[in-house]
Amino acid sequence: MEPALLKALQGIVGSEHLLTDIEDRMTYSYDAAVLDPKIPCAVVMPGTSEEVGKIVAICHENKIPITVRGSGTNLSGGTIPETDGIVLLTVRLNKILEINEPDMYAVVQPGVVTATLALAVEKKGLFYPPDPGSQAVSTLGGNVAENAGGLRGLKYGVTKDYVMGMNFFDATGRYVKSGSRTVKCATGYNLTGLMVGSEGTLGVVDEITLKLIPYPSDRKSMVAVYDTIDQASETVAAIILSRIVPATLEILDNFTIRAVEDYSKAGLPIDAAALLLIEVDGHPVVVEEETQKIETLCKKMGASGIRVAANDEERDKIWDARRSALSALARLKPTLVLEDVTVPRSRIPDMVKAIQQISNDFEVSIGTFGHAGDGNLHPTILTDKRDKKEWHRVEQAIEQIFDKALEMGGTLSGEHGTGIAKAPFFKKEVGASSIEFSKNLRRALDPNGILNPGKITGV
Amino acid sequence: MEPALLKALQGIVGSEHLLTDIEDRMTYSYDAAVLDPKIPCAVVMPGTSEEVGKIVAICHENKIPITVRGSGTNLSGGTIPETDGIVLLTVRLNKILEINEPDMYAVVQPGVVTATLALAVEKKGLFYPPDPGSQAVSTLGGNVAENAGGLRGLKYGVTKDYVMGMNFFDATGRYVKSGSRTVKCATGYNLTGLMVGSEGTLGVVDEITLKLIPYPSDRKSMVAVYDTIDQASETVAAIILSRIVPATLEILDNFTIRAVEDYSKAGLPIDAAALLLIEVDGHPVVVEEETQKIETLCKKMGASGIRVAANDEERDKIWDARRSALSALARLKPTLVLEDVTVPRSRIPDMVKAIQQISNDFEVSIGTFGHAGDGNLHPTILTDKRDKKEWHRVEQAIEQIFDKALEMGGTLSGEHGTGIAKAPFFKKEVGASSIEFSKNLRRALDPNGILNPGKITGV
Repeated sequence: MEPALLKALQGIVGSEHLLTDIEDRMTYSYDAAVLDPKIPCAVVMPGTSEEVGKIVAICHENKIPITVRGSGTNLSGGTIPETDGIVLLTVRLNKILEINEPDMYAVVQPGVVTATLALAVEKKGLFYPPDPGSQAVSTLGGNVAENAGGLRGLKYGVTKDYVMGMNFFDATGRYVKSGSRTVKCATGYNLTGLMVGSEGTLGVVDEITLKLIPYPSDRKSMVAVYDTIDQASETVAAIILSRIVPATLEILDNFTIRAVEDYSKAGLPIDAAALLLIEVDGHPVVVEEETQKIETLCKKMGASGIRVAANDEERDKIWDARRSALSALARLKPTLVLEDVTVPRSRIPDMVKAIQQISNDFEVSIGTFGHAGDGNLHPTILTDKRDKKEWHRVEQAIEQIFDKALEMGGTLSGEHGTGIAKAPFFKKEVGASSIEFSKNLRRALDPNGILNPGKITGV
Repeated sequence: MEPALLKALQGIVGSEHLLTDIEDRMTYSYDAAVLDPKIPCAVVMPGTSEEVGKIVAICHENKIPITVRGSGTNLSGGTIPETDGIVLLTVRLNKILEINEPDMYAVVQPGVVTATLALAVEKKGLFYPPDPGSQAVSTLGGNVAENAGGLRGLKYGVTKDYVMGMNFFDATGRYVKSGSRTVKCATGYNLTGLMVGSEGTLGVVDEITLKLIPYPSDRKSMVAVYDTIDQASETVAAIILSRIVPATLEILDNFTIRAVEDYSKAGLPIDAAALLLIEVDGHPVVVEEETQKIETLCKKMGASGIRVAANDEERDKIWDARRSALSALARLKPTLVLEDVTVPRSRIPDMVKAIQQISNDFEVSIGTFGHAGDGNLHPTILTDKRDKKEWHRVEQAIEQIFDKALEMGGTLSGEHGTGIAKAPFFKKEVGASSIEFSKNLRRALDPNGILNPGKITGV
């Protein structure tokens, strides 16, 4: 990057908020996906909307690629920058601008940490349900860019279901408003809907308006233990068919259970073939009734045991253990590939079986856990990328998993996004016309191709 | 239109499904908005996806404008065609292709009537919540194109919250797939989100996948009577603040009450200054508890009476009366302008007052009713468009209503769409950059401008 441009960026944010040392730039050259790093020219940390606008304008004029980054927890390479571009880090754009209690919405800057907002609204008796696994560190801007899911997708939906409005700078630096602070809004195109999940390729988000709902008055968590994973996955289908919609309905296979227990010492039964972790929430009477119904169902479907958390401490232990799954698995081998296929939930038993078969066929270790209730599984492959032969088998196994999910009417990504990792497979799911349509749209909105190049459509 | 083209269209759909007589064409020259009609060249009624694709391809090659129309209940002119274009009528595309119980979704063609789907899924214990006032005749394709709302927006959201996927023909006739049959989907752009509410300007919808939820096990409706409209609108804010989210929370002013009672003979108290019509649903225990809390709140806020429907018959009477409001008001004067402004719900008392003031200032009759719980009011102006002087005052009053709603952080349209009617005011709400962004997007996806010209962006 030309020194004059660096100087201009420095002029906008101040020298302490522009990182140009190689050590700093390396830090921002990768994210949580297993992909090659790319070292950006600079890392810029604006502190205000105005500064963001100026940065975008300079990049537009000089055709400098911009990759916006929150906490870099991305699992599809969505925050891997270009070597001739900058990383726009949202760490200083971390203000909750408003929590409106009567109208139940919040307005935030993109750098607010997900859990920070969740806690702030909880204190007012309100609820922001989307809870991606990385919520303790992930940012709302990142969640919105990736349309992040989480453990509560089954009952409460995902990030896109909570974004009411969004203001952003387009690729030329113009400020675009979309959506509203009202529950209903039918004025103009649903640009807010388009922006959610667009992975920073259509604009640089400045302000997000999020829908809140009343905090559920009660909740109960339980763990059901199974001797076969089929029984566990068939229980998932049975619960949904009974028209109970738990807040959370998670599955862990034996491989994952052992890794998690070893890491978290939560007291999980390490000999179980599978566990279901279930939470219901709502009115106390409903919670009690549904807990009992689910207990009965689990037993009927073959659970060898079921434990209901007696108090908040026991409850938190269950969910802390679940949330540690990724870290626990990551300790075991040098490379961890966390997949994200999603199938219609009734196909969970079939998909679980298919993954086991693929694991055997290609002789790769796959731990499976995930949001079984909404059909979103995380088959997790443990490997060492330096072992070229095994890595080739891993790549084949992944492609097989994708094919199986699509065969069952599913999707390649439930919540991790397309990014770089899935861009080559995108066509498999949607066909050439959809890609062409998406490329046309993108080209029109970012004619110089400066916004997070290479993600989603592969250009 | 050239005879050769008409012949080609006839070849696709058969002569009985191509209307070219002037009487027929006039029938499709207007919708429910107060706007000048435009007579299309032809009305084409395809019966299959394949036929739709062929029609779009012919129109693309010959630059013939296409306006897709379901039942024409549109209130913003979204289905008014071009004089050199065709109307593509979805009446024969009326199949429910699938209702999937375990995975809780439905796949429909665009011409399925909203209430037909709602009833079909109800029979299976499932619920499709969006219920626009016109649901008995409106089509799901129209609902999706307009992002239709309805009476249940407060608790259940609007059409966009239920569209999981959509396949459509783009402006060149290519078939584009988007979304999924899974609850979570983060593959590619959220094209489904973009298409909802795009008013037929970005593609011709072929197949829609809709999310279903379990049917609520119980419900209760009530009517609260007020001596002042302020007390009624303040009750709305108080209910929401108490963290109760009713399924429906409607307001009717005295003007509307009288018109409705005269028409429906439902037994409404014609001397009341305002009524609130409220329904709660869910688990029987919750329904009972919330009903009691709401009764107490209504009285505390000054309701002179409150009646809880004792049975389904009484319940249906309340909602039939409410649903007749538009027809009842329409009988009174030659011209009815149904507005659709929406404000954050806590501002409902202020907005109701502002509308009364505007009615006085401009000496125009405005009946106000609407979905108070989600801030979506329908100030309804009764006039005679032929009375030029009064019509001028009406136009001024409407613009004042828009300004007030925007001042309160609201939006010009909660659920009726932008269409032709609001296109000139769109800029007021979102600013020039948003319009430019929207125009770029549209131009890229419909380079010849054949898809429903003139709607939303005004070109």
